[in-house]
Amino acid sequence: MNGIDQILRQHDIKPSYLRMKVFDYLKQHMDHPDVDKIYKVLAPEIPTLSKTTIYNTLHLFVEKGLVTELILNHQKHYDIRTIPHAHFQCTACGQIDDLEIIPPALDPKYVAAWQINQVQLTYFGVCASCQK
Amino acid sequence: MNGIDQILRQHDIKPSYLRMKVFDYLKQHMDHPDVDKIYKVLAPEIPTLSKTTIYNTLHLFVEKGLVTELILNHQKHYDIRTIPHAHFQCTACGQIDDLEIIPPALDPKYVAAWQINQVQLTYFGVCASCQK
Repeated sequence: MNGIDQILRQHDIKPSYLRMKVFDYLKQHMDHPDVDKIYKVLAPEIPTLSKTTIYNTLHLFVEKGLVTELILNHQKHYDIRTIPHAHFQCTACGQIDDLEIIPPALDPKYVAAWQINQVQLTYFGVCASCQK
Repeated sequence: MNGIDQILRQHDIKPSYLRMKVFDYLKQHMDHPDVDKIYKVLAPEIPTLSKTTIYNTLHLFVEKGLVTELILNHQKHYDIRTIPHAHFQCTACGQIDDLEIIPPALDPKYVAAWQINQVQLTYFGVCASCQK
């Protein structure tokens, strides 16, 4: 978990062991996991862990701009890539892929009126494997 | 409900009274309602109505390409405008506005591999009223 404590501190987050473990998991698994998936992997290592603790940790990461939250198919997914990009989600297997497409900028008249916090551009369909 | 039976028939949907009522509601309320909102308005007029019936009706409309389903904030919303456009959702009051932005086309290499069924481009933030 080299350097993770520094990254957290740079984002004004106190680097507890759990926070470092969750961030390390996200760094190594860029497949947009949800809370359940992270819990399944970390719970055997950290017996006192609860899904609520993971959720709160992720919520803090999102608040501090360290992680992006994606709502896809009624589920919250977490993405360590905070630079603008798009996603493809297969509605058959649920797999989420990154796409190097920058979502279009909003007309200045809207930017003046609204406070925009997040843009989500998602293509839904069936991936190559699931079409077979 | 002038002409609604014809629109439904053109989309291969048998125009029952309930289906015509739901479509008429969507036509007159383009604020992207969810099932609860439609139920609240139609239930007093149609005492035998259930949320499941409305959901099934909307599902049929989506399947036949008559209506678009949007998943925003863990809720399914329905939109009679099926031409490509984007949305803004205020995360404070939940209001959803249409935006005249066409989501970017996918690179042909992806279109060849995946079967794309829907594109969702949403800007999340706080609307002018909620900022006051």
